[in-house]
Amino acid sequence: MRIKVAGIGLTKFGELWDKSLLDLALEASYEAIEDSGIDKNKIDAVFVGNMLIGKIAGQDHLGPVITSSLGINCASFRIEGACASGGLAIHLAIQGILAGTYKNVLVVGAEKMTDAPSHQITWALMGASSSRERKAGLTFPALYALMTQAHMQKYGTTRKELAEVSVKNHYHASLNKKAHYPFEISIEKVLTSTSISSPITLFDSSPITDGAGAVVLSADTDSRGLPAGRQVFITGSAVASDTIDLAQRQSLSELKATQIASKKALEQAGAGIKDIQIAEVHDCFTIAEIMAMEDLGFCSKGTGGRFIAQGATRLGGSCPVNTSGGLKACGHPVGATGVKQIIEITTQLRKTAGARQVKNANIGLTQNVGGTGATVVIHVLQT
Amino acid sequence: MRIKVAGIGLTKFGELWDKSLLDLALEASYEAIEDSGIDKNKIDAVFVGNMLIGKIAGQDHLGPVITSSLGINCASFRIEGACASGGLAIHLAIQGILAGTYKNVLVVGAEKMTDAPSHQITWALMGASSSRERKAGLTFPALYALMTQAHMQKYGTTRKELAEVSVKNHYHASLNKKAHYPFEISIEKVLTSTSISSPITLFDSSPITDGAGAVVLSADTDSRGLPAGRQVFITGSAVASDTIDLAQRQSLSELKATQIASKKALEQAGAGIKDIQIAEVHDCFTIAEIMAMEDLGFCSKGTGGRFIAQGATRLGGSCPVNTSGGLKACGHPVGATGVKQIIEITTQLRKTAGARQVKNANIGLTQNVGGTGATVVIHVLQT
Repeated sequence: MRIKVAGIGLTKFGELWDKSLLDLALEASYEAIEDSGIDKNKIDAVFVGNMLIGKIAGQDHLGPVITSSLGINCASFRIEGACASGGLAIHLAIQGILAGTYKNVLVVGAEKMTDAPSHQITWALMGASSSRERKAGLTFPALYALMTQAHMQKYGTTRKELAEVSVKNHYHASLNKKAHYPFEISIEKVLTSTSISSPITLFDSSPITDGAGAVVLSADTDSRGLPAGRQVFITGSAVASDTIDLAQRQSLSELKATQIASKKALEQAGAGIKDIQIAEVHDCFTIAEIMAMEDLGFCSKGTGGRFIAQGATRLGGSCPVNTSGGLKACGHPVGATGVKQIIEITTQLRKTAGARQVKNANIGLTQNVGGTGATVVIHVLQT
Repeated sequence: MRIKVAGIGLTKFGELWDKSLLDLALEASYEAIEDSGIDKNKIDAVFVGNMLIGKIAGQDHLGPVITSSLGINCASFRIEGACASGGLAIHLAIQGILAGTYKNVLVVGAEKMTDAPSHQITWALMGASSSRERKAGLTFPALYALMTQAHMQKYGTTRKELAEVSVKNHYHASLNKKAHYPFEISIEKVLTSTSISSPITLFDSSPITDGAGAVVLSADTDSRGLPAGRQVFITGSAVASDTIDLAQRQSLSELKATQIASKKALEQAGAGIKDIQIAEVHDCFTIAEIMAMEDLGFCSKGTGGRFIAQGATRLGGSCPVNTSGGLKACGHPVGATGVKQIIEITTQLRKTAGARQVKNANIGLTQNVGGTGATVVIHVLQT
């Protein structure tokens, strides 16, 4: 597999009161199309990743809503898989290219979350879990709190180690102008912030964010006059599912779907996890990044907290993780997240990440999670 | 393209008060898997077509909701494109197979509509059109009434010709035990029924229906010991978009997306429209079937009403259309419709349609429309 990331576009992430979902989707799309150098009329399919706009604003059928506004006339699709909607849209766009049906595809991930009052957004997001969990009153912080408790109990992971994830990602975000929260925080800040669902605090949790990202993917594998090593290709793409209910799993302290999907995607890319120089992972809560490190194989099971606390995944470390600021500090507009991850890795591999540039990075990985790991999408990108 | 329809499964369509969306999706899925003879653990991806369950019941992330309940562990996706969600799910499943990523794929189209009060379902369905049309108070009957008026004015199409569509489809449904309304009606009944949005009456309109359909598609092209000419393959699959707003179109009396997508799908199949022996088209309102006949090329533009009234598309005619009863009389559970169309054509090409069997049918076509034609999906099936 060798699918070119021909163009990328990303809006500012944040509480964007003056912009609609469509404004955000179009801004990212136009930027990606311009960046690709491909005429918009040569886009032959649009894949939209979005979870919530039907529930929040009544708008479904986003494919032609976006193609209409872009003034293009091609096949279009909306893909939904909770917080993995963006990653799934990328994966299915790739299938269309590999099938030979589509040549140049625009993938747009977009979410407008702040228009809804907080009780409505909480209800809307709970659609990512099962009706049983909803009826039991298990919000997402509560579900991830169960996973956090299980991990702490089984492996001795500490509150301070969890906080280190948030501190690192806020540091990265402080170097990213597009981030929702581009400032540093301290360990103490995380530990003493409001408890959301014990042991998860406010600063263990990703925020409610508006934003959109778009990429143009192309079957064309030329490098369009770019300097050697600056053209980026997706070389692995895999999806795995797990039970929708946490209660049906044998273990609460791992995501099996991450293990399965990453193995497949790395095989496709002909790479091992030790080859990966940079990654964007799904840190919806701090425990999720710790489990991701372990389930991806960056470190052995149970040692994720220490691995992160030791600085390996901080800028300057052996494999920086979430240089964008991650979901925690760059923000988490759910349908956009999987696309933003691809954009961040592409930016890094192009060597255009500015103050947060990882030196000599030529191969990276993204991990996008839906719900509590019922869906996981892994992509591998290489120059 | 030669994708095997390895298995099919369809629930009864109707007001199914005692069944949930998941009940319906599982019933259709198990039937399709059993019919395929493929071990459920050899299904390597599940594509779910559904529009409304997030808005109506709060449940998103349907992919793993369904894989969990089926007890299988594979990639899963939810695809949404309003009333074309089912057709789009089939199209994307085919891309995954053509790409070589997936071998055996389950596609489930399901919708549970009657659980919502009627004002909620009206609001929910309006998500298929643009926010401008919603704000103008244009419900779907009103949008199709505009198209009906335009067609009547431009081509002299009559109320009686519109009614003929409904009468024919009710006759077909009277031969289909799975149909929501398995009984015949008269021209007078249609003409004198309650006006919904002039000139559309109650009996010009498809109903609010619960139901699910599932198909197993396979890259494997053997015929599994079936008699010659009974194994069915999808040989063409194409999607086209149009503007989300009716107001932005040059003509209200045609669906450009039907014209574009059908041309592509027929080219893929190496067939012309005159080769098609049977079709299932998207008769959400009677005018839609008349326009479909014209836009697909079964008859020239403006003559669709007369073409249908002359009996060509009735069982026993030269090309029976909507032998299932169509959306009008078999019912229209929106996410299921595109999948049900594939199931009906497959049943006919297998020669297992019983009382409504079309003799010697070996090539058929489906047309699945989203909204007012902003999305159209065309499939060609052959033995």
